[in-house]
Amino acid sequence: MSEAPFAYEGLDRLLHERARLGVLTSLAGNPRGLVFSDLKRLCALTDGNLARHLQALQEAGVVEVTKSVARGRPQTLCQITPEGRRRFLEYLAVLDQVVREAAAAAKAHPDEDALPGLAGA
Amino acid sequence: MSEAPFAYEGLDRLLHERARLGVLTSLAGNPRGLVFSDLKRLCALTDGNLARHLQALQEAGVVEVTKSVARGRPQTLCQITPEGRRRFLEYLAVLDQVVREAAAAAKAHPDEDALPGLAGA
Repeated sequence: MSEAPFAYEGLDRLLHERARLGVLTSLAGNPRGLVFSDLKRLCALTDGNLARHLQALQEAGVVEVTKSVARGRPQTLCQITPEGRRRFLEYLAVLDQVVREAAAAAKAHPDEDALPGLAGA
Repeated sequence: MSEAPFAYEGLDRLLHERARLGVLTSLAGNPRGLVFSDLKRLCALTDGNLARHLQALQEAGVVEVTKSVARGRPQTLCQITPEGRRRFLEYLAVLDQVVREAAAAAKAHPDEDALPGLAGA
């Protein structure tokens, strides 16, 4: 592992996608679930995009999607699962560490860029 | 924007890829640059994968790739540009905010999951 300190293998690939990050934050804050149309609006996603992400997350057991009929109209309820919440929190902890390390690296050498020492390295 | 609080449009798509995050952190911490083979090892990437990411980052002006000959052997030096460092720091600031919001959302309702209120919502 110390051979490749920047491989970030602990950074859960399934969750590390911008749209999925939004979907999971939305669902984590609404444990009783969100209907498809509200989730779509909150994350500014298209029907097709949201459906595709939900399918991937559902197959991994991270979210649960339940279709029902409410007041005569079909309704799709999306919820984060307990396993999904646990996995999301774990991912966020790793990401937090990555952000700190990256910010420290990026801030450490702000001046040397002016004269990139191509020949002098 | 408040219509879609979880769209995360400020989260720079070009940089928000696990491998690129590792590449940029490596380069940010080594302003004089890293040779291709060292960068590859630090990030545990294949030749093809690293080359592909570097090309995308170079086309966007985030990194600079310089080929030269050192001691009779061809050498590829990779550096983050000043613009790249600025953009990376901006991305990290947005990501930090996203992580905080998501962690707060995920931690706020840890117990309700035990009984997902499907019918009671």
